[in-house]
Amino acid sequence: MNRIGVWLIGGRGSIASVTIAGQLAAARGLLPAVGLVSDRADFAAAGLPPVESLVFGGHEIRATPLRAVAREILVGCGIHGLAEQLGEALDAVDADIRPGVTRGAGPQVEGHGDTILRADSDRDAIAAIRADLDAFRVKHGLGRLVIVNLASTEPPAEPRPEWATWEALSAAIEAGASQLPASTLYACAALSGGDAYVNFTPSLGSRLPALAELAERAGAVHAGSDGKTGETLVKSVLSELFARRNLPVLSWFGQNILGNEDGRVLDDPHHKASKIRSKDHLLPKILGYAPQTRVGIDYVASLGEWKIAWDHIHFEGFLGGRMTMQFTWNGVDSLLAAPLVLDLVRFAALAQRRGERGVLSALGAFFKDPMGTDEQRLVAQDEALLAWALGTSAE
Amino acid sequence: MNRIGVWLIGGRGSIASVTIAGQLAAARGLLPAVGLVSDRADFAAAGLPPVESLVFGGHEIRATPLRAVAREILVGCGIHGLAEQLGEALDAVDADIRPGVTRGAGPQVEGHGDTILRADSDRDAIAAIRADLDAFRVKHGLGRLVIVNLASTEPPAEPRPEWATWEALSAAIEAGASQLPASTLYACAALSGGDAYVNFTPSLGSRLPALAELAERAGAVHAGSDGKTGETLVKSVLSELFARRNLPVLSWFGQNILGNEDGRVLDDPHHKASKIRSKDHLLPKILGYAPQTRVGIDYVASLGEWKIAWDHIHFEGFLGGRMTMQFTWNGVDSLLAAPLVLDLVRFAALAQRRGERGVLSALGAFFKDPMGTDEQRLVAQDEALLAWALGTSAE
Amino acid sequence: MNRIGVWLIGGRGSIASVTIAGQLAAARGLLPAVGLVSDRADFAAAGLPPVESLVFGGHEIRATPLRAVAREILVGCGIHGLAEQLGEALDAVDADIRPGVTRGAGPQVEGHGDTILRADSDRDAIAAIRADLDAFRVKHGLGRLVIVNLASTEPPAEPRPEWATWEALSAAIEAGASQLPASTLYACAALSGGDAYVNFTPSLGSRLPALAELAERAGAVHAGSDGKTGETLVKSVLSELFARRNLPVLSWFGQNILGNEDGRVLDDPHHKASKIRSKDHLLPKILGYAPQTRVGIDYVASLGEWKIAWDHIHFEGFLGGRMTMQFTWNGVDSLLAAPLVLDLVRFAALAQRRGERGVLSALGAFFKDPMGTDEQRLVAQDEALLAWALGTSAE
Amino acid sequence: MNRIGVWLIGGRGSIASVTIAGQLAAARGLLPAVGLVSDRADFAAAGLPPVESLVFGGHEIRATPLRAVAREILVGCGIHGLAEQLGEALDAVDADIRPGVTRGAGPQVEGHGDTILRADSDRDAIAAIRADLDAFRVKHGLGRLVIVNLASTEPPAEPRPEWATWEALSAAIEAGASQLPASTLYACAALSGGDAYVNFTPSLGSRLPALAELAERAGAVHAGSDGKTGETLVKSVLSELFARRNLPVLSWFGQNILGNEDGRVLDDPHHKASKIRSKDHLLPKILGYAPQTRVGIDYVASLGEWKIAWDHIHFEGFLGGRMTMQFTWNGVDSLLAAPLVLDLVRFAALAQRRGERGVLSALGAFFKDPMGTDEQRLVAQDEALLAWALGTSAE
Repeated sequence: MNRIGVWLIGGRGSIASVTIAGQLAAARGLLPAVGLVSDRADFAAAGLPPVESLVFGGHEIRATPLRAVAREILVGCGIHGLAEQLGEALDAVDADIRPGVTRGAGPQVEGHGDTILRADSDRDAIAAIRADLDAFRVKHGLGRLVIVNLASTEPPAEPRPEWATWEALSAAIEAGASQLPASTLYACAALSGGDAYVNFTPSLGSRLPALAELAERAGAVHAGSDGKTGETLVKSVLSELFARRNLPVLSWFGQNILGNEDGRVLDDPHHKASKIRSKDHLLPKILGYAPQTRVGIDYVASLGEWKIAWDHIHFEGFLGGRMTMQFTWNGVDSLLAAPLVLDLVRFAALAQRRGERGVLSALGAFFKDPMGTDEQRLVAQDEALLAWALGTSAE
Repeated sequence: MNRIGVWLIGGRGSIASVTIAGQLAAARGLLPAVGLVSDRADFAAAGLPPVESLVFGGHEIRATPLRAVAREILVGCGIHGLAEQLGEALDAVDADIRPGVTRGAGPQVEGHGDTILRADSDRDAIAAIRADLDAFRVKHGLGRLVIVNLASTEPPAEPRPEWATWEALSAAIEAGASQLPASTLYACAALSGGDAYVNFTPSLGSRLPALAELAERAGAVHAGSDGKTGETLVKSVLSELFARRNLPVLSWFGQNILGNEDGRVLDDPHHKASKIRSKDHLLPKILGYAPQTRVGIDYVASLGEWKIAWDHIHFEGFLGGRMTMQFTWNGVDSLLAAPLVLDLVRFAALAQRRGERGVLSALGAFFKDPMGTDEQRLVAQDEALLAWALGTSAE
Repeated sequence: MNRIGVWLIGGRGSIASVTIAGQLAAARGLLPAVGLVSDRADFAAAGLPPVESLVFGGHEIRATPLRAVAREILVGCGIHGLAEQLGEALDAVDADIRPGVTRGAGPQVEGHGDTILRADSDRDAIAAIRADLDAFRVKHGLGRLVIVNLASTEPPAEPRPEWATWEALSAAIEAGASQLPASTLYACAALSGGDAYVNFTPSLGSRLPALAELAERAGAVHAGSDGKTGETLVKSVLSELFARRNLPVLSWFGQNILGNEDGRVLDDPHHKASKIRSKDHLLPKILGYAPQTRVGIDYVASLGEWKIAWDHIHFEGFLGGRMTMQFTWNGVDSLLAAPLVLDLVRFAALAQRRGERGVLSALGAFFKDPMGTDEQRLVAQDEALLAWALGTSAE
Repeated sequence: MNRIGVWLIGGRGSIASVTIAGQLAAARGLLPAVGLVSDRADFAAAGLPPVESLVFGGHEIRATPLRAVAREILVGCGIHGLAEQLGEALDAVDADIRPGVTRGAGPQVEGHGDTILRADSDRDAIAAIRADLDAFRVKHGLGRLVIVNLASTEPPAEPRPEWATWEALSAAIEAGASQLPASTLYACAALSGGDAYVNFTPSLGSRLPALAELAERAGAVHAGSDGKTGETLVKSVLSELFARRNLPVLSWFGQNILGNEDGRVLDDPHHKASKIRSKDHLLPKILGYAPQTRVGIDYVASLGEWKIAWDHIHFEGFLGGRMTMQFTWNGVDSLLAAPLVLDLVRFAALAQRRGERGVLSALGAFFKDPMGTDEQRLVAQDEALLAWALGTSAE
């Protein structure tokens, strides 16, 4: 069995620790890794790498041991006893988690870490990250890696002229004149070495023309952004009801409350701005017009790992009559995200094996703000994913 | 403009009166007929008959004038002033509404009507219905009619051996040995004359092999059954989330409360049985397994025309973690049903124009329990409808 | 029958127009004035003035005729045809609505009115308001008036030293050195003439020591503030469950969405600050400790007169187990507020008849932020109101 | 410290095992016994017996050891690791749990038990129960016991003439002519020995004139019935909003879904009838009129220990406008019930210490269908409880 190297940015965070623990648990037959799209019977013919074949490492700025983080998070997710069973396996992964970069990561992150990769320039940071990736690959005898960004959401970055081409951006980096956010530094390091980069957050990551160019040049694949795990996931299915039935949506108001570290960081308006932007542009694309929408996110500490969304949909019917639908979604964010991370790794590895390069637009089903496609409807996204994975796409 | 004759069983009921008033209002430019699937831009090339071309008649067992019914129902739906504006036009339609049949229509209907078409046998009933249809056609100079069943839900009918073939059933009818429910008597009358029969209720209607055969022989089209207007509509979209994301549904509990005549009749357990049966078989088909489901329907008089559904979905996630989703749907049943009735008439008329015969399986999107197809997913049903209407189906 | 003069600040707003139309409708027997606390059988012995005895006037900054406003608002509230029936009676009230003051009323009000009472100083404004009140009293031969503030919520006012005593404040007013918000200018004018002042909004109004002193001196009564009509009303009842059952509330998150003019003004953060402050201090007083709370208010235009609140309550049970309760409140703000306005007028008039003076602390049941009492529990507030009205209070 | 003997009917059921484990955990300082009404500061002066002083025994028809039941139930309640910590203490209680009676306990219980107290007549059953109680008392050197019925809900019992007096009933028992349900056999045994009987279920228990008389004669106290833990608890608070604000309730529909053994038994319509009856008579008493109400209870196995209620309240406002409120209650039944059981034991022991006899009407706050009082409002019930406990009642 070929082993696949997976490198998680935010390697001791909630999603990473549940992803790692879940993969270890599944590989040992302790608990089932429920909820993987890639485990569906209709993907069987795609020849995806088995979940057991993954090997984890990562970057992280907090020093709390993975074992301790995993225990706390898993209990918060309602999974008891597992972290204890996995103790040494978690420690082994922890040994491959390296100090992370905080440059340009926003006020709730910069200056808050315990284990920081110090770098005086973007150039030095990229080089140091790349060295960590190479060391991990060599140590475990791995081929190309899949890097997944699971770090806290960064504030929106102001576009700059040098983002337009890789030539301009690489010159600026060399000259010490670039100001890239951390997520993009990681993406540069990953793609320049030919590794895959997957952005599970709304941070900038590889979403700039210069990095799209870099990926093509380096023969690397990338995908993003912002994992579609809860309210937006529901929207991307439910909005079809109104579209297909030709019922005009008058307004769609959504409110999220959550209690984990992600929520704490998003409580800072600088960080929240990226999230709101990512969540709020889906309805116009699906409906073909723009009803009034609002997406609220608030931090409610007592909820811990739980994320509750309440959505109120106001729509018009026959003769102008008005009706409503409401839903509440009670999800555990990390349990919803972790299987998607494993899915993304498997699909990215498939693309690598096939020698693909550039944006993996077929992975749009996993993202709130998919790169390389305007399709936002889950069903259509999933059909596209299936066709790509099975090699039956029309194109 | 060719006029299309539409014959509504239950012609002075809630759905019928809103359908008729809505068509009249739209034809006069008084209020927009919002919510017609057939009005979507992507159906434009299908050449559907315009809504303005419809001419209405029907059967009914209650004597209250259409104008009075429409006023009460429309106000109950929140549409004020329209019935007054349409007074004479409603009276004109009312003149084409004839006494209805109650044979086999269940305890809440038999013996309750004011204007009953008396018939000593199924044979006589069919003949009398057929005579009404022919008189309507002649009076207005119409071609083939579209009959739509909007009457109260009948109790489930016990299958009988003579249902197997038209030969056996027609012999039993002739011999006075058949015991067909009212919905099927209407279907026999419609199909035997080559007219279209659409069953918007869960009653038996044309859902028996003998009538399928009759339709083929007579060159008539038919479709059904049970209009998908509320909770089941949501289910047929939302369940895809769990299927596509491979999240096992542990249980799906739904409770409907409604206050109109439909609710009053369904409050009788004999009548309710048909409804529950129709609503509850969709999830296993979409999910591929059968979670515990319950569908409750209760009559709450104060709700009037409103129908509220509360659904509680319990599902499993990564590592066996458990999460929930709930929704409430606040709909006005008649406002949701009426545009679908107009849609069905337009699509049935299209099929007639094309010379189709037999079950219109492409109309499955409109029904809780679609005939001629096992597809229950709204998106796939809608794609099939579009392909059929535009003549781009693969088949 | 002695007539009671009622003067509404914001006399052509949503609540005022529904209050006036409702009183006129009830007096004419057209529609029942449902939902008056003062109509309960247990208040019968209090000898409250009949609803029919009220005579309305007011101040307003918008020029749209009351008849037109009332028609639009009532239809938005689902009450059809009433404004037409009341046409001339509404016009008669409209003739007693005078241009209003906008000084210190906040960015969404100042500079937005059509009919402004121009005044170069607080002193001039108070004098002009007072002249309007006196003219109304003389014209209709009324005794003491009840002034009710129904105007848009003002931004929070910064306390100033001269607020401490009436001597200091009146000196500052005379000297042109005061900077009172509009709500307080109206309160000064009302109280200085011995009339009652009731503040149905969270604006400052009479909530400063100087005006408390003025009321005592002038023999006037006053009450406030911020009518308790929706989410806070529910909270003030439901929180007792957790208090009485000793179940610790971990967090209580509330989100309001509303579509009327009130919502549009509150969409401005300066105005919203007053509202949030008023809504959010109730739970600690009832529970005896302060769980994490948030109160969100957002403007959703399509909702019109409707106000929807979603509250999520997270609480702890036996052995530290965690449970939740959620509620949604679907209310029409003006229909909930109008009967309380009529109640407040009747109770204020009772206090006037009894020769009371100063803060009417017994009216706390009507307010989110009651003056003169710390009691926030609806049941205890209502018992206190009953005892006061019937003259059976222990004190 | 005087020890208080507590005897639980259904001693290895969900509520009993959580009650026992919780008391043991609190006594050892392992977990806090959150949610005891009797722990509120305002009850401090009542001199209630400490929770630590309780000693448990009981009757039960299932053989699964308490330790195993407690582990499963506690994990189902989200409390992990506790049963393991309490292993031997649970075994010690288990040794005092005796085979139970199934006579008259309904189709879901009779014939289903493992450890049955066989008795050929009501007389023998009562004598055998009494012997168990006496043996427990002697073994532990206890004074008067408190018996609490936590067994599965019985079907409604048909009243019989001999229930009218203790003389008639005791004669019938002696003659072998009585047909008492199990809950009443336990009550007879308890009260005849002077012990307290508390009925936490809607079964008959001591709710018949003959047993009221027996309690008075024997100097025993009793209370009931049907613990108020969820939806009805909310109703008994929330309905005050509509009563105090004079807002007519048009309909109040409630639907409960639950997954534990209680739910499984209630799924049988014979057993469910008692429950519905108990839950559905509260609103007319609080509101003073009877809106349409329905209370549904359905068994949804996947919910395990969770009980979800959805209530839809339709009410009328000013000018006849209509509005709604909905709530969902997500509770763990045993965690809500267990602290109330401890409360009831403490208050019953207080009554015993004071030498009270007969129905403890002051305990109405704990019950859906309180004995000895018509008061259904939680706040008033709680005030009455407080006054009684502190000896400050007006009477």
